[in-house]
Amino acid sequence: MASVLNANAIATYENVIEAHERIRPHVHRTPVLTSQYMNDLIGAELFFKCENFQKTGAFKARGGCNSVFGLGNEDAKHGIATHSSGNHGQAIAYAAAMRGIEATVVMPNTAPQVKKDAVRGYGANVVECEPTADARDNVLSELVTKTGAEVIHPYNDARVIAGQGTCAKELIEDTEQLDTVITPVGGGGLISGSCLATKALLPAAEIIAAEPEEADDVYQSFKAGKIIIEPGYAPKTIADGLKAPVKNLTWHFISSYVGNVLIASEQEIINAMYLVWERMKIIIEPSCAVPIATLIANKDRFSGKRIGVILTGGNVDFKNLPK
Amino acid sequence: MASVLNANAIATYENVIEAHERIRPHVHRTPVLTSQYMNDLIGAELFFKCENFQKTGAFKARGGCNSVFGLGNEDAKHGIATHSSGNHGQAIAYAAAMRGIEATVVMPNTAPQVKKDAVRGYGANVVECEPTADARDNVLSELVTKTGAEVIHPYNDARVIAGQGTCAKELIEDTEQLDTVITPVGGGGLISGSCLATKALLPAAEIIAAEPEEADDVYQSFKAGKIIIEPGYAPKTIADGLKAPVKNLTWHFISSYVGNVLIASEQEIINAMYLVWERMKIIIEPSCAVPIATLIANKDRFSGKRIGVILTGGNVDFKNLPK
Repeated sequence: MASVLNANAIATYENVIEAHERIRPHVHRTPVLTSQYMNDLIGAELFFKCENFQKTGAFKARGGCNSVFGLGNEDAKHGIATHSSGNHGQAIAYAAAMRGIEATVVMPNTAPQVKKDAVRGYGANVVECEPTADARDNVLSELVTKTGAEVIHPYNDARVIAGQGTCAKELIEDTEQLDTVITPVGGGGLISGSCLATKALLPAAEIIAAEPEEADDVYQSFKAGKIIIEPGYAPKTIADGLKAPVKNLTWHFISSYVGNVLIASEQEIINAMYLVWERMKIIIEPSCAVPIATLIANKDRFSGKRIGVILTGGNVDFKNLPK
Repeated sequence: MASVLNANAIATYENVIEAHERIRPHVHRTPVLTSQYMNDLIGAELFFKCENFQKTGAFKARGGCNSVFGLGNEDAKHGIATHSSGNHGQAIAYAAAMRGIEATVVMPNTAPQVKKDAVRGYGANVVECEPTADARDNVLSELVTKTGAEVIHPYNDARVIAGQGTCAKELIEDTEQLDTVITPVGGGGLISGSCLATKALLPAAEIIAAEPEEADDVYQSFKAGKIIIEPGYAPKTIADGLKAPVKNLTWHFISSYVGNVLIASEQEIINAMYLVWERMKIIIEPSCAVPIATLIANKDRFSGKRIGVILTGGNVDFKNLPK
């Protein structure tokens, strides 16, 4: 049994290796796909790590399982709680169901119905709140005071970051040499874990974070060299998985290891999503399309490179498709 | 070089083996995917042969390449011509482009724009006609008289049937023992080729054809024991790849080897399509969803079986999605 990792610690690559062993029985080793069309379009060699095929339809199953299965019995006995705009909620619900403990997910009332239904489908409780960071935190705090549940933050949590790092670890293990690893960034859990794996396995590779222009706190922070979150930050973007603000643990990794932050407009994100549907015949959700949108908009920068792209998820609300 | 196969011959499994060698450089060996969700839903073990990931987005690339690359130089010198509601047109256009010869595709003016664009995208000519079988035949005849092009029928052609047979051949080679092979049926090219491969490799397996209720000529013919096509047969179905009527060559295989024909309503087809998008995170087109719709509607019949399902294509017009 690996050592217990404190939620507030700075995760290490050792924690990623431990996470990989821990979650193996509960998640897929997802395939890495290539597309001649996409290669020709970008003028580069792209390797798509397909977490849209992951359990729960998103990479979040990794961090969720690592957190839940890493808990001691004492910490797990009052169940777990979290807040999530969707995919982390499903991941926690899934992991809790696998372990047989109770889970409660605080979700913004604006989250896609398909994501709320999925959380309930795994047997977890959903508590809705207003769609602001403050509202979520308040509702979660009350809940935890009442129940004693263990909180697993969607990204500012070393256990979650270590779990997400297993995705880039597999991507790098399953490809020969990459020049670049690119992932979307919301709160920063995935990019942080990707930093750990990439710096350990491919120290020369560049790590790029891709962010919606309409939720660009990481872009602004990166430019400023410190966390910049506007007061009342409540971005509106089609990329609903990327609305959360960066926090101290994820900022540590982003500021230390990320080479650049690229942004994409709403229309670029939507176009990239449908392009992948049409050409690669796989479903990706809007948040997942952001790196592809930035690759298309910055072709010259990536010309001739071997690029690992994490396709983060495929949970789409087909009843409310964007134009 | 394999022997030249006459378009009007009854293809054999030897022709499928020859086709497989011939088309190998030009088509993908597509993956066979599984889905725990779909297995649980049907109560069976399903093996999905993903021709939606095939070159041109559909299995038709197989028959197209076998036909085009099997032509002698003399037969190819005036180019090739065909009629198609879409995917066969793309396949012929793709194969002709690969070989460097001219291609013309007669398409109904009701075909999805995305399919017309794709044919033109490969450099082929598109000639539009009224959406009836008679109109298509007449326009194609005129064209051939004028140009001397070699006609490659979309399904009633031994070269095409042999090419389509490579798909079930791979499916069977890549799975351990199947009880059932199920494919959609329109004109019958795929099911005919599937009969050849299945009877050769898995003689005990049952072959099922799945057809839209709104385009049920094969179902009616199968019940009657002879080809039944209503006068003026011009079915309307969301499964636009399955509107063509069965003909003599394909009827030979269907009447000899198919165990049953199952039908699905329009709503069942649409529901099955979105279910696969949502749960498997892959894009399939409506025609491709018909076998899944029939499996869902006839669960009891398939309980506990190992079923090979050919997912025929993923060419969807995202601008005109059904509800």
